[in-house]
Amino acid sequence: MAFSLIPKEMKFFDLFDQQATNAVETAALFKKLVQSGNFDEEGVQKIRDLEHEGDTVTHEIIDTLNRTFVTPFDREDIHALACELDDITDMIQAISTRMKLYKLTEPNHELMQFAEIIEQSARAVAKAVGGLREIKRPRRILDYCIEVNRLENVGDQLRESAITKLFDEVKDPLLVIKWKEVYEVAETTLDKCEDVANIVEGILVKQG
Amino acid sequence: MAFSLIPKEMKFFDLFDQQATNAVETAALFKKLVQSGNFDEEGVQKIRDLEHEGDTVTHEIIDTLNRTFVTPFDREDIHALACELDDITDMIQAISTRMKLYKLTEPNHELMQFAEIIEQSARAVAKAVGGLREIKRPRRILDYCIEVNRLENVGDQLRESAITKLFDEVKDPLLVIKWKEVYEVAETTLDKCEDVANIVEGILVKQG
Amino acid sequence: MAFSLIPKEMKFFDLFDQQATNAVETAALFKKLVQSGNFDEEGVQKIRDLEHEGDTVTHEIIDTLNRTFVTPFDREDIHALACELDDITDMIQAISTRMKLYKLTEPNHELMQFAEIIEQSARAVAKAVGGLREIKRPRRILDYCIEVNRLENVGDQLRESAITKLFDEVKDPLLVIKWKEVYEVAETTLDKCEDVANIVEGILVKQG
Repeated sequence: MAFSLIPKEMKFFDLFDQQATNAVETAALFKKLVQSGNFDEEGVQKIRDLEHEGDTVTHEIIDTLNRTFVTPFDREDIHALACELDDITDMIQAISTRMKLYKLTEPNHELMQFAEIIEQSARAVAKAVGGLREIKRPRRILDYCIEVNRLENVGDQLRESAITKLFDEVKDPLLVIKWKEVYEVAETTLDKCEDVANIVEGILVKQG
Repeated sequence: MAFSLIPKEMKFFDLFDQQATNAVETAALFKKLVQSGNFDEEGVQKIRDLEHEGDTVTHEIIDTLNRTFVTPFDREDIHALACELDDITDMIQAISTRMKLYKLTEPNHELMQFAEIIEQSARAVAKAVGGLREIKRPRRILDYCIEVNRLENVGDQLRESAITKLFDEVKDPLLVIKWKEVYEVAETTLDKCEDVANIVEGILVKQG
Repeated sequence: MAFSLIPKEMKFFDLFDQQATNAVETAALFKKLVQSGNFDEEGVQKIRDLEHEGDTVTHEIIDTLNRTFVTPFDREDIHALACELDDITDMIQAISTRMKLYKLTEPNHELMQFAEIIEQSARAVAKAVGGLREIKRPRRILDYCIEVNRLENVGDQLRESAITKLFDEVKDPLLVIKWKEVYEVAETTLDKCEDVANIVEGILVKQG
């Protein structure tokens, strides 16, 4: 029987990094699709593939958790972090599927802004999660968490102005239904990023 | 003072079976109502009664959990399993109430398919949950979980095609609002079945 | 080094009281705004301020929890209670923001009833939560929990009749979309109150 040279605890950090990187890649591809205004089957399928990769890593984290006795931080936090990171990618995939389903092809200024903020937030989330390896330097990690919280507030205001504009300018109720849902899922994506930041902050407090 | 001949641990399996059987009965009655196209007060009331029975069993599980020291598997898993099983019945009741409220009486092909898949999924859930008594034979339990996951994917695609058809064919926005919500709750019902399957899989992994 | 004269455990009760009082104040202000039919920037800002105060107390509870070894009841219950109490205020703020955003200025009979029930429920929640200090007298606490459950049922029926009336009487689909969402968030507010009552009941059972 051979022993792994990498302590099992380290494996969690690698897997969280994979999840976070996956969320960043999904957010970057989503921004490209929004800019092109073209949610065709090929683009949406690529997002779906990334979402499936995310699922695989999430399952690996939960499996590892169930088989590991000593963990780098609380089991509940590891479980919650894995699920919430996964949710970021899920939400981006949900927006993409709706864009295709609803045949929303015209360029949309508000969604471009959302895509930009989502990508920024995913990058800050990835930095915060990556920082958990060096928990002795919490200052930088906290700065990324604060940035994620700030972006969630920006997203909140963006949703408000987008919905106000929608009801003011669009007269076709079916189009209102479609875009309202897209904006709401976009805002929920930023909520999920904030959930991750809150879990990271909680982990820091406990170790502090 | 008399001692019960049934170990307390066994009681959980009986209660989970009751919950799962209740979900299957609710799903079967729901399918009948969809086929008849008649969500009248009598039918919806029967669904509501089943939902209340489900609530009672859920409370009994949580009470038993709070009074029991040794449990057949992790306390959090027992709690989560009870809540998610309860949610299946809740969701079916939610669809039924909306059908009546929205006066949706014409037969609907997509909802019939959803009702069929929901019943199949509830039956697979019941088999998976029932299998927890004989956790030493995990292979069969896992097969039921995989079936529940497969049906959730089928439901996802059904929702997509149902919503595409809805926006393509129905021009009355109020009718679109109503059916869109019904399809979404139907799909959420299958998500809840999948949540149960995931919890069961997690229990197997820990005992494995 | 000085020791605090108030045991740390007591601090939780003070913080829960603050959260519950905050929810009651938010509900009372919301009722006033509904009665005046005037969700202007000033009124909505006051609600938002109360919501931010609520957030601060919630964070303080979670911080205290993470730094405290001995807690008056289960850590998970303290965490869940803090989050769900916070959600009550969040939901009332969500309705208020939508009222302003959707420019819903005409007086609405159903929303007045919701506001009344929400305030009653928040008051019962505050009594139940306050009762946790004297857990040896569970009878009174349970009565408040039962009252919260009763009000949730009243809210359920109110939502049903409000939605029926909405689809029957309002022909503008955009107006239907707006009011439907407002009624749903109002009903969710009462669900959150019920969640708190259920957590309180769970705490009583465990200590019983």
